[in-house]
Amino acid sequence: MEIESTTCEKGLMSRLCDWAKALFGKIRTKMGNVVNRIMKLAIDDPRRVIHSFKVALALTFVSLIYYIRPLYDGFGVTGIWAVLTVVVVFEFTVGGTLSKGINRGIATFCAGGLALAANYIAIHLGKEGEPVFLAAVSTFVRFFPHIKRRYDYGVLIFILTFSMVAISGYRVEKIIELANQRLFTIIVGGATCMVVSLFLCPVWAGEDLHKLIALNMEKLASFLEEFGGEYFKLHEEESTRDVDICSKDKLLFLHGYKSVLNSKASEESLANFAWWEPGHGRFKFSHPWKLYLKTGVLIRQCAYHIEALNGYLNTDIQVQSEFHKTIAEPCMKMSSESGKALKELASSLRDMKRPSTSSTHIKNCEAAISDLRAALEASSPGRADILKIIPSIAVGSLLIDITKCVGKISESIHELSDKASFESTESTLSSHIIIHRGSTVKPLISDTTHGNDDNRVHVVIINTTPSATCPRLV
Amino acid sequence: MEIESTTCEKGLMSRLCDWAKALFGKIRTKMGNVVNRIMKLAIDDPRRVIHSFKVALALTFVSLIYYIRPLYDGFGVTGIWAVLTVVVVFEFTVGGTLSKGINRGIATFCAGGLALAANYIAIHLGKEGEPVFLAAVSTFVRFFPHIKRRYDYGVLIFILTFSMVAISGYRVEKIIELANQRLFTIIVGGATCMVVSLFLCPVWAGEDLHKLIALNMEKLASFLEEFGGEYFKLHEEESTRDVDICSKDKLLFLHGYKSVLNSKASEESLANFAWWEPGHGRFKFSHPWKLYLKTGVLIRQCAYHIEALNGYLNTDIQVQSEFHKTIAEPCMKMSSESGKALKELASSLRDMKRPSTSSTHIKNCEAAISDLRAALEASSPGRADILKIIPSIAVGSLLIDITKCVGKISESIHELSDKASFESTESTLSSHIIIHRGSTVKPLISDTTHGNDDNRVHVVIINTTPSATCPRLV
Repeated sequence: MEIESTTCEKGLMSRLCDWAKALFGKIRTKMGNVVNRIMKLAIDDPRRVIHSFKVALALTFVSLIYYIRPLYDGFGVTGIWAVLTVVVVFEFTVGGTLSKGINRGIATFCAGGLALAANYIAIHLGKEGEPVFLAAVSTFVRFFPHIKRRYDYGVLIFILTFSMVAISGYRVEKIIELANQRLFTIIVGGATCMVVSLFLCPVWAGEDLHKLIALNMEKLASFLEEFGGEYFKLHEEESTRDVDICSKDKLLFLHGYKSVLNSKASEESLANFAWWEPGHGRFKFSHPWKLYLKTGVLIRQCAYHIEALNGYLNTDIQVQSEFHKTIAEPCMKMSSESGKALKELASSLRDMKRPSTSSTHIKNCEAAISDLRAALEASSPGRADILKIIPSIAVGSLLIDITKCVGKISESIHELSDKASFESTESTLSSHIIIHRGSTVKPLISDTTHGNDDNRVHVVIINTTPSATCPRLV
Repeated sequence: MEIESTTCEKGLMSRLCDWAKALFGKIRTKMGNVVNRIMKLAIDDPRRVIHSFKVALALTFVSLIYYIRPLYDGFGVTGIWAVLTVVVVFEFTVGGTLSKGINRGIATFCAGGLALAANYIAIHLGKEGEPVFLAAVSTFVRFFPHIKRRYDYGVLIFILTFSMVAISGYRVEKIIELANQRLFTIIVGGATCMVVSLFLCPVWAGEDLHKLIALNMEKLASFLEEFGGEYFKLHEEESTRDVDICSKDKLLFLHGYKSVLNSKASEESLANFAWWEPGHGRFKFSHPWKLYLKTGVLIRQCAYHIEALNGYLNTDIQVQSEFHKTIAEPCMKMSSESGKALKELASSLRDMKRPSTSSTHIKNCEAAISDLRAALEASSPGRADILKIIPSIAVGSLLIDITKCVGKISESIHELSDKASFESTESTLSSHIIIHRGSTVKPLISDTTHGNDDNRVHVVIINTTPSATCPRLV
């Protein structure tokens, strides 16, 4: 019995040990995962780590109000408002912090004054319901789209301060002193945030917007540069398996443009914060942020067409038709040239230079469209073929639409470079050579002349091509 | 001299009068505009006005803490935290309020406890830097996408309370009492918000999401139902001017779908708030909100294709080709039938009933696709014609894609009606008649059988039609 129970105990112990080991193993993998995710978050954008330390620094500054005795005696318990302000106001970008800080400051000031007045009225005239009524009105005001976009935080703080002062005014006698102290501590907290945010590794919302627009154009460009080869070669070299696997990888890579489809919200919030930012680096105070939004809309428009185009990449491989081969060359050219145009626009935007070669690429696109027209005129598909050529024709038609969208994006970027007075590159004139089927054609010089908006980009679509115009923007 | 100066004065007066009149006129128009906008805001969604009064009511409740003497004596100045909590926590939807209230309560409790511990350590072991370090870590934690989505407010309040208690702990002796009072007042404020939000004209985020998804489907349906007639008739009756003006109005009406393209953000925030809501009305606690998001993605997918299709409505009117007329009938049928399918899906979702006739419409679409195939096989465009038929073919191809998207949406709605156990309508069986070129064809009965997911919607695309499959979702 003794031996048996010992064996049993040993068995139990070993089982417990195993269980504990398994548990520790699981915890270790979980912890490893968490650490990996933290590392990824930090490596993806190291400014996040810096931001955390900036908040800590601002808190340390503000808590000095508590730690140093003379200051404490002056402020009293209201010093806590400075801490509160820092935590609530400090945003990731400079624009965000400035927007919240300024909104908070002004709202506190106005609401404080108004609440005192309301308080006075309540005491002397007996209208006690008013503060609550005003809070209700302010709450409704927050539904206005314009106010919601830019001053929502300010109105919230207005309601907050107003309610607090108006209601507490009923009790606390030294109301004006309290309001004074509160306003002062909030100014201290807000100013600390703004100074730290502005001068210590500032994260500019405007710069982020600038980069985001360029990045979005590059994503579309990557797709377009690859698409032509991918679609028309996929159908040619269908026999080799290696190509297939390689193209599967490429398909994943091509899907980078998907994020562009939903970039509206982030673009708008960045543009909104950029509005609050002072001039910095290469961006002046009056930088035309609205044009970035306009360009963003056009880029998304183009992305919607690309999304429709992308559907054709996943098609089951069809029997290769003669027609398909005929239109392959101009379609591939359209795709790659519009990709190149976008890439050039993106890089010129990044460098804040006037785009130089994009119009050349767009002209090459136009040439490709007329090539496609010629190819179509020369071909005559038979009865059975018409079914097989549907996808190819649809792809061609979508590519023509995309070319037009790219033309509009180019116009918008040119407008932007005019308004923001970007530098013009030296190569603007020399690079004006249109490559058209190997021969060199004299270019129309118009890119470098200022103030001639209409001529800058020529997206003249050849009339005889029965293509659709780019959808209007709403 | 006397007379002259009087005349001059009179002239000045009349000019001043004019100026004042003009100013008042301007102010009146401005005021009128503002009033109109306020009225529009209130009429568009009267719940906004109710929300404002609900906030006022909650504030009145909470301010009783101040107004009634015995309560005031118990709480002291910390009663102000209840007011603050109401202003900050009260959101438009029930889910939003619950999410913020619960986040705030738990965060305050945790942070308070931790801050006290940190305070103890700081006093007894002298590690004063720790609170600030913890605030930095918490700030970084807010960058995690999952935490940002659901617990961002909680972490913010955690940092806030933690900093406040940990820092003020250095001075105020009765720290535990203060923390107690603060927690209690926050609970009072939060509970007031939640009760008012839950029981007084509640605005459910879940219901809004439910309606939004149905509305988005209806918007796409309206476009599709009109598109066929619009595109193919626009080209037929190009001579009459009245039709043109009428169709311009219609074009504006058709653009309702544009808002669907950017509905991702609002869908996600509503789904997020719906997650916090208890069961209400026809929605159970475990309602499958995630499936709404999945359906939303599919609807947007469809909207991208419609955006590409919309481009063809704005085309300059081309010379009518014979081919165009040939494919008109099946294309119009595809467009209207997929529109009808979407409308049926939307209305069944609205009524929380299992969709009954949508699969019939989808089968009619399939029939139309094979009709198109037959029409294409019968036709043989000449050399010059191929240029003219490009847009028509592209439209046909896009419509086939849209049909497939509608099929996927239907599958998703069926999955939703299974998971949420919607009622099945009585007409499910009787309405299973496929209208195919006027003749009545016996249907495949599969809609009413449960647990047979694969057979429910038949979107079998005829193999010989070389069409593209719907793009994969990322």
